[in-house]
Amino acid sequence: MAHNTVEKTSVTLLGLGAMGTALARAWLSAGHPLTVWNRTPARAAALTAEGARVADSAAEAVAANPLIVVCLLDDASVEEVLAGTDLTGRDLVNLTTGTPAQARARAEWARERGARYLDGGIMAVPPMIGVPEAGGYVFYSGSPELFERHQETLVVPIGTTYVGEDAGFAALHDVALLSAMYGMFAGAAHAFALIRKEDIDPAALAPLLADWLVTMAPAVHQTADQLRSGDYTKGVLSNLAMQVAGTPTFLSTAEQQGVNPELLSPYFELMRRRLAEGSGEEGLTGVIDLLVH
Amino acid sequence: MAHNTVEKTSVTLLGLGAMGTALARAWLSAGHPLTVWNRTPARAAALTAEGARVADSAAEAVAANPLIVVCLLDDASVEEVLAGTDLTGRDLVNLTTGTPAQARARAEWARERGARYLDGGIMAVPPMIGVPEAGGYVFYSGSPELFERHQETLVVPIGTTYVGEDAGFAALHDVALLSAMYGMFAGAAHAFALIRKEDIDPAALAPLLADWLVTMAPAVHQTADQLRSGDYTKGVLSNLAMQVAGTPTFLSTAEQQGVNPELLSPYFELMRRRLAEGSGEEGLTGVIDLLVH
Repeated sequence: MAHNTVEKTSVTLLGLGAMGTALARAWLSAGHPLTVWNRTPARAAALTAEGARVADSAAEAVAANPLIVVCLLDDASVEEVLAGTDLTGRDLVNLTTGTPAQARARAEWARERGARYLDGGIMAVPPMIGVPEAGGYVFYSGSPELFERHQETLVVPIGTTYVGEDAGFAALHDVALLSAMYGMFAGAAHAFALIRKEDIDPAALAPLLADWLVTMAPAVHQTADQLRSGDYTKGVLSNLAMQVAGTPTFLSTAEQQGVNPELLSPYFELMRRRLAEGSGEEGLTGVIDLLVH
Repeated sequence: MAHNTVEKTSVTLLGLGAMGTALARAWLSAGHPLTVWNRTPARAAALTAEGARVADSAAEAVAANPLIVVCLLDDASVEEVLAGTDLTGRDLVNLTTGTPAQARARAEWARERGARYLDGGIMAVPPMIGVPEAGGYVFYSGSPELFERHQETLVVPIGTTYVGEDAGFAALHDVALLSAMYGMFAGAAHAFALIRKEDIDPAALAPLLADWLVTMAPAVHQTADQLRSGDYTKGVLSNLAMQVAGTPTFLSTAEQQGVNPELLSPYFELMRRRLAEGSGEEGLTGVIDLLVH
């Protein structure tokens, strides 16, 4: 029963924005038969030269293959585009960005229409598609059967990380990691603002900043360990009392440099509140509990 | 004139908190003659067994060696401790945490007393002292002669990075990097808060979070490049208009997960303000200009 040539899984892809187009190209160059549809036909036509089959309607595209990948603007577009299609027996993979609640509702909606459902959260920008060394990947959650059956096809454009049967978990992981990234960017913005009026080359600060952030990022392992154990003093090297005592230096420096501290002060304020609860021997993990209500 | 044995530079160290004690141990184990003084004598006495000479007063400690390192609670303590000492001809290295303005004033103060001055900002916690693989180091700024003369001694406990003759630059670099780190920690706190009520192990999220932050940290190089060129659209992959369009997903997810968005929303608000100025084709660099007044 061994084959010398393996038939590549056919894929239907709805949505050819920058991300959809990058995905299409990756599947096409790997030899996967691909049927595409896009609201604006011009973007689909551009892919025919590369071997894509262009469907005249979303319904025709969905009818073409068992594996349907959608990558649209938002959740409302998914409902609208798939409204007139027959999803019975289809494996629906939704890479459209949304909230966990939208993903869960869309999974239920798909189930009602006889489809298996897998939700995806893309941790990448389009130029990272098809470039494994760029470090991007897609979080997947929902039907484990669907993921197992199609993992080999899904991994063609970009790495896959399955995070559970709850269809909302991919979006939740996606949002969690991107939120953390915005926090890091906010911190970096404050750092660059501090040197803005000084005779310091931002390009000389950047490698120091990148290295320091890379050095300190693994601190999240200790945070996780403390959250699991419930002991927020575990392994603490610089306790909350000491760190809060250091915050005036940060705020005074911002003031001296003419920098609005608005990106730092909310975190410092939460540190102060946690300290006021008598948690001076902890590290910073207690701040997390102040965020959740 | 070659020597088989090289005389190690003698060091005077004032201040034996956790950091000072770690520095003292590193110099002692590397064979540097060390004179120490601490306000509370017990901490100094503990080091005698390891070979430290304990001075009875700060004045005696300062008189003992040309190289004086101070590592005290704050800038006011430096003034207080050094008040009755003769700094004439001394090389004063101040590792006490402070603002750039405090460092500049302290440099002038030292100059008036006939001392050369080098300011240091320690990018480490005490357990990283003497552990090169931990990635810590000290920013130095101020007298280049002092730094050159003593770099070999200063590098014994922990790496050195000289950032300029302006005595305030070490503190400024220190505060900039630590501010960015707090931003990253704030982002990570939000991420952990998002999964707090879900059946997701924080220890499973942590490696994903650490890897993603490490992957995205080098984005600061693009920021620096844009700040230098003044062209904030240069190399942008995901523009401000698209990113602002994505923020409701982040805020809705926070709301769904019962998480206060206070650590993210100030950055999103600045993104929106920058977009409103007609900068939709830029990336995120324009936010920095909104912070500086």
